[in-house]
Amino acid sequence: MTIAPLGQHLTHLHQVTPLTHCITNYVAMNSSANILLALGASPAMLHAEQEVAEFVRLSAALSVNIGTISAPWAHSIQIAARAAQASGTPWVLDPVAVGATAYRQQLCAELLALKPAVIRGNASEILSLNGIANPGRGADSTVSSEDAHTAARQLARQQGCIVGVSGETDIITDGHQSLRLYGGHALMPRVTTLGCGLSAAVAAFVGADPTSPVTATAAAFGCFALAGERAGQMASGPGSFTPAFLDALYQLTPRIWTPV
Amino acid sequence: MTIAPLGQHLTHLHQVTPLTHCITNYVAMNSSANILLALGASPAMLHAEQEVAEFVRLSAALSVNIGTISAPWAHSIQIAARAAQASGTPWVLDPVAVGATAYRQQLCAELLALKPAVIRGNASEILSLNGIANPGRGADSTVSSEDAHTAARQLARQQGCIVGVSGETDIITDGHQSLRLYGGHALMPRVTTLGCGLSAAVAAFVGADPTSPVTATAAAFGCFALAGERAGQMASGPGSFTPAFLDALYQLTPRIWTPV
Amino acid sequence: MTIAPLGQHLTHLHQVTPLTHCITNYVAMNSSANILLALGASPAMLHAEQEVAEFVRLSAALSVNIGTISAPWAHSIQIAARAAQASGTPWVLDPVAVGATAYRQQLCAELLALKPAVIRGNASEILSLNGIANPGRGADSTVSSEDAHTAARQLARQQGCIVGVSGETDIITDGHQSLRLYGGHALMPRVTTLGCGLSAAVAAFVGADPTSPVTATAAAFGCFALAGERAGQMASGPGSFTPAFLDALYQLTPRIWTPV
Repeated sequence: MTIAPLGQHLTHLHQVTPLTHCITNYVAMNSSANILLALGASPAMLHAEQEVAEFVRLSAALSVNIGTISAPWAHSIQIAARAAQASGTPWVLDPVAVGATAYRQQLCAELLALKPAVIRGNASEILSLNGIANPGRGADSTVSSEDAHTAARQLARQQGCIVGVSGETDIITDGHQSLRLYGGHALMPRVTTLGCGLSAAVAAFVGADPTSPVTATAAAFGCFALAGERAGQMASGPGSFTPAFLDALYQLTPRIWTPV
Repeated sequence: MTIAPLGQHLTHLHQVTPLTHCITNYVAMNSSANILLALGASPAMLHAEQEVAEFVRLSAALSVNIGTISAPWAHSIQIAARAAQASGTPWVLDPVAVGATAYRQQLCAELLALKPAVIRGNASEILSLNGIANPGRGADSTVSSEDAHTAARQLARQQGCIVGVSGETDIITDGHQSLRLYGGHALMPRVTTLGCGLSAAVAAFVGADPTSPVTATAAAFGCFALAGERAGQMASGPGSFTPAFLDALYQLTPRIWTPV
Repeated sequence: MTIAPLGQHLTHLHQVTPLTHCITNYVAMNSSANILLALGASPAMLHAEQEVAEFVRLSAALSVNIGTISAPWAHSIQIAARAAQASGTPWVLDPVAVGATAYRQQLCAELLALKPAVIRGNASEILSLNGIANPGRGADSTVSSEDAHTAARQLARQQGCIVGVSGETDIITDGHQSLRLYGGHALMPRVTTLGCGLSAAVAAFVGADPTSPVTATAAAFGCFALAGERAGQMASGPGSFTPAFLDALYQLTPRIWTPV
């Protein structure tokens, strides 16, 4: 797997401006919408049980995040994921803090049955999701991405999906081949919901080109790694990082990955 | 209709600091509150069915936005809008993505019966609201403001309200006379919920001076056009646009519209 | 009471990275999470009735804010506060706009019975909470902190808790001794939910060292006063204030309070 196609994915996304339906947590909604707009996608945040199935069918992809989950949202997510499965719309699962409570574990077990195209989490979440006992601690990862590589491959093979693990080194795997991505910046864990925004970006890239979800997922991770690196060079702290990061996402061009 | 009174509206708003009750979507809450504070208004976000009627009566105006609507919020919005109607408090309707789903169309039909003082939307939303079939696509507009001028005039006349249409060119109409506003910046559609914030700003201006809702609405649009232009000159992308835009709103003075 | 221990509290917080469970309003969630991360704490926003008690037991502290309260959230807050009381986890109450509606007054009366370790509000809210009739006006304070000093002391003594009053001059009291803090910046009331973020910061400091809640509370207020002052010097308005404030929180070191 090479990074040659990543630039093509960004070209695609700019051409398609994929309508990306996000059912995400309250903390991440604004920042995820701004991340999608900066990248060139078209975000839509809506979650009413009366309309999610109808809207999923208009969308290029669905991104689901359980960060601030409650019963009505879990119900809508299940309706939306079922509609996505029925219509062949790719959907992304972000299992925030799945290891932290029994409620999250039960919900994620139900969601895995609805066949996400991609699962995006930190190492701790991927380990939990793979059934390995791992005490959760909010949305922060307590193990390295490498530790989660085996779990990610197992999960990807069992589910027949892509698994993306965020960390100092990112890992994207389809269970057979894996891609490691380096980059980003030490300030990124000090800014809230960047991981949630990455899951939304994965949905946008996969929605823009559903034919190759593994390289589409890698393109989203690559955009974050590059924009994060650039923003980190500009920033004096996590406050100035955020606008610099959105600017950097906006300024990314497909040429960044063109071999010279 | 001239822009001479616009500066007077800003003077009024600065003097009155109108308490502006917003029942808006989760994505827009923080940015709308910051927009109102930067302008000099006093925002309040609350939506519990037990208290909205009581709070509407304390408020200068109510702003309603259906972006992330669900049944409990729709219920509270109806209570609040009814209380506003009963107490003569002006209220603004932002019919986000009304064309996208049947659920939104039904809800907006019910809300129109409660007589908003102003409707603020993009061209696509105003067309949908006027009953013209127009396939919605999230919160993004797919037709120009000019295309929606006829619809806006019809809607304003039927409803006896002001209609404001956001776009490259903004249109504000009472159904008989229309005002076109130029300005803003190409980055504005790349920042989420600026339109929602504009609806909140319209409520604040109309609340500060309910005697002339058409020029009050134009004043809000004018502030956004000017601040957007200034912020766009400062910004390197949508990330740096946002703080620059809030700063520019904060720095606006009534003199901006004073003839020299 | 001297400010000597404040630097020690920041050292503690940096060492412990206290997991701070926030059940807060929609407007404040993102900014409170970023404030906690900038300070060096670990935020977690979750509110489902099925999991809050379980999560409180994992957390160093709980922060409760009623800004956008509704019945399901009030229910979860009561479960979480009861779990905190049972497990000896300190919890902070931010009674946003308690004077504005009967619904908020009733809810706060119930929450006071669950024994918060700290109450953080503006002068108007502290006066209302102490039973002094004071017409509320959204989240904005309409009386000075000094006016609320007597109310704060009475409330602290009655409740056996710490009360922190935000304003131009901050007051922190245990009902017997009081500390006044100066600093901050005139732009701070023009940025939404800084007060809510301060309540979350108080929870983080008290969670990092529950043995001295009064100086821990003062440390949180002190960080805000200092970071606010620094950010105000950098900012051109409320938009640029926010990233500068987060950067300043991030750059604070325990040395700031070391006598030279």
